Amino acid sequence: MTTADHGRQLHLNAFLMNTGHHEASWRLPESDPYAHVELDHYVHLARIAERGTFDSLFLADGPQLWGNIAQRPAGALEPLTLLTALATATRDIGLIATASTSYNSPYNLARKFASLDIISGGRAGWNIVTTAGAEAARNFGLDAEPAHAERYARAGEFLDVALKLWDSWEDDAIVGDKASGVWGDDAKVHPPRHRGTYFSVEGALNVPRSPQGYPLLVQAGSSEDGKTFAARYAEAVFTAQQTLADAQAFYADLKSRTRQAGRDPEHIKVLPGIVPVIGSTQAEARAHEQVLEEHIVHTHGVQRLEQLLQLEPGTLELDARLPADLPPESAIEGARSRYTLVVELARRERLTVRQLIGRLGGGRGHLTFAGTPEQVADAIESWFTQGAADGFNIMPAVLPSGLDAFVDHVVPLLRARGLLRTEYGPRTTLRERYGLPRPANQYVTAPAPVLV
Amino acid sequence: MTTADHGRQLHLNAFLMNTGHHEASWRLPESDPYAHVELDHYVHLARIAERGTFDSLFLADGPQLWGNIAQRPAGALEPLTLLTALATATRDIGLIATASTSYNSPYNLARKFASLDIISGGRAGWNIVTTAGAEAARNFGLDAEPAHAERYARAGEFLDVALKLWDSWEDDAIVGDKASGVWGDDAKVHPPRHRGTYFSVEGALNVPRSPQGYPLLVQAGSSEDGKTFAARYAEAVFTAQQTLADAQAFYADLKSRTRQAGRDPEHIKVLPGIVPVIGSTQAEARAHEQVLEEHIVHTHGVQRLEQLLQLEPGTLELDARLPADLPPESAIEGARSRYTLVVELARRERLTVRQLIGRLGGGRGHLTFAGTPEQVADAIESWFTQGAADGFNIMPAVLPSGLDAFVDHVVPLLRARGLLRTEYGPRTTLRERYGLPRPANQYVTAPAPVLV
Repeated sequence: MTTADHGRQLHLNAFLMNTGHHEASWRLPESDPYAHVELDHYVHLARIAERGTFDSLFLADGPQLWGNIAQRPAGALEPLTLLTALATATRDIGLIATASTSYNSPYNLARKFASLDIISGGRAGWNIVTTAGAEAARNFGLDAEPAHAERYARAGEFLDVALKLWDSWEDDAIVGDKASGVWGDDAKVHPPRHRGTYFSVEGALNVPRSPQGYPLLVQAGSSEDGKTFAARYAEAVFTAQQTLADAQAFYADLKSRTRQAGRDPEHIKVLPGIVPVIGSTQAEARAHEQVLEEHIVHTHGVQRLEQLLQLEPGTLELDARLPADLPPESAIEGARSRYTLVVELARRERLTVRQLIGRLGGGRGHLTFAGTPEQVADAIESWFTQGAADGFNIMPAVLPSGLDAFVDHVVPLLRARGLLRTEYGPRTTLRERYGLPRPANQYVTAPAPVLV
Repeated sequence: MTTADHGRQLHLNAFLMNTGHHEASWRLPESDPYAHVELDHYVHLARIAERGTFDSLFLADGPQLWGNIAQRPAGALEPLTLLTALATATRDIGLIATASTSYNSPYNLARKFASLDIISGGRAGWNIVTTAGAEAARNFGLDAEPAHAERYARAGEFLDVALKLWDSWEDDAIVGDKASGVWGDDAKVHPPRHRGTYFSVEGALNVPRSPQGYPLLVQAGSSEDGKTFAARYAEAVFTAQQTLADAQAFYADLKSRTRQAGRDPEHIKVLPGIVPVIGSTQAEARAHEQVLEEHIVHTHGVQRLEQLLQLEPGTLELDARLPADLPPESAIEGARSRYTLVVELARRERLTVRQLIGRLGGGRGHLTFAGTPEQVADAIESWFTQGAADGFNIMPAVLPSGLDAFVDHVVPLLRARGLLRTEYGPRTTLRERYGLPRPANQYVTAPAPVLV
């Protein structure tokens, strides 16, 4: 029995990251330090998520090696490649990959997503990122990262081109008439002939239109530029929110911006990230969390925090608070919304640098919630029913055990409360799982009236 | 029993292309006009090739939509995406994808191949192409295709950067020391810090070194620039040769150039393409071929020939020969070696345009061979033993039936003659199948002597 007809349904996304979202997770006895390059590890995780009837799974990414590999597992299989392998190992779950608009060509990327969408039977999603940081820029011929506003301007044009490419074949362009020798209807192919600021793309895509038309469009930046972009293009948004009030404000703001952009606010799904740490009692959950915190190497955390806050190395002291004179968000050209989230968290809760590192170690600014399955389900239900979320981005601190715990103990509660499907039912597309319509083709218009 | 110890072994590559290499193959009653976007079709083909203990399978590609979709199946799943899906559906066969050095970034492409190599357990190969044609250029912000020499200059620098990226992690860079919290040895990571004419790439790859070190490097251009490039980088070469004498000359030339480039000529494998059309009698084979030729739409063939020869539309007449005053190869900026092959074929055999189109329809200039299984096996053995080939690129005119026929009827003969393995034996890498050594890491040198 599916529960699709039982009222508003929760959407769940499994955010997979090697041995887990806690930076020290790889040090636990149960963890495999090579997990990040092992297909079997990811197949196992994907199948757990399918057991939990999640809408989708997700892989983050950036085209650079982060920091020093001494600190923690570094590097990852390229997400579109890994998701293609997972497509063949799963049946129902959506497959969302991060890819950068700053360091890809629209033609190549549009084609890869169309190919994944075809191979997976309509289960592809694209988490659109503009990629902060000079490290990535320097891998692609630039000396420094492009300014925040410019990255978003390029992202907007990238999307416009990609949408033209995905629409460049009408759905019924293939005729396949063997008798006459006509394979396709050339009038149903529409080359973009795009000439813009960042891109010139002349020809049609060399893949037919895919089952979903194009991948589910996902976005995760919460800066002003990010929210404007999301309101225009995104169908799902991942966000980091620490309090119910902040999450409600973000939710209302994004729905309102989406309405102002001329879109139906039901067509953008907001999924805050949550790092559930589950125990049979609250004390057991807290003990799990404690073990992870004890495995954090603080000197590494200080380095990363100084990098994020654009401070000189050696500025921060472990047992002091953040300096009072940090620059405003608008002065940050990197990951702007993450900067603000971290600074506000530290100030609101009056955290020392050591405490802040402990809090960030779990979910990099996402809400860490340690508790019993009932407490986790209550938190989810409360955000979901109080205008803070359409679903959640589930980010287990330790993988696979944390995802197993969520699926075995929290998912049954959510199902019993009528919030989550109990089975997938017939095969369908990722966009349908999220309750979104298949997009129309921009080149197909109603036939012109015949003048008599 | 494997036959690896029975003397020199033949290498077979299955060149997969939707319903077959004959341009009219899609019109046969047995063919599926949608095959080119159906994963199951390719899984089926890959498994036939594995049944025939082929070394590898191969997908050609170009980042543009070719010509008019009315003519024949157009577009294709992106090869690296498709091969990743095939990696999970196969166990032993190598997986070679075409990708362009003109329209990719080294960082992105190196990472994708490393990821495929990891996911497939060391079975990835890269057919390196520079991509001729203005159509592709115009999909990537250019108005016209870069000159032939410039495309090859860029390809050379692309390879140098890619090799640095693939070597940027030493094989034992991951330490995984949970007790001390040290995951990797940062001294074993080597950022390329490359600043060249076409590329600047600063950082190390964000994937560890893969099972093969890097994908098998394959090349298929036979122009002067192409052969120079192959001698320097390629480990396998696909080539179109119409006669034994031409194939012997090409083989000797390439081995000699490879020696001159300071490499072992055994470390470059030459695989001419062959389009086998198999019948139980020669007459039956010839009848198969006849059916295919009758399904060619000649007006399309004329258009494509005029494009290849850089002639004005309407220049060629179906029942006349090619004009006498065609330009020399050096004046061609497009697919140079293909140009020469086609012109020479037409002149040598005094073909009319109609006849030439019939000949090219089967294998686009590759050797079409219609005969009994014995005749096909004889032809293969004769080229293989007379210094014309290390193996063959098998290009069935119709798929899957032509590949089935080759595996069912020709492969047993090759095995009985001791030329081809009878089973794969233990799992191994693609490079080992081709009898090639795993490449050393350019950043690893013998330890310096300790001074006492």
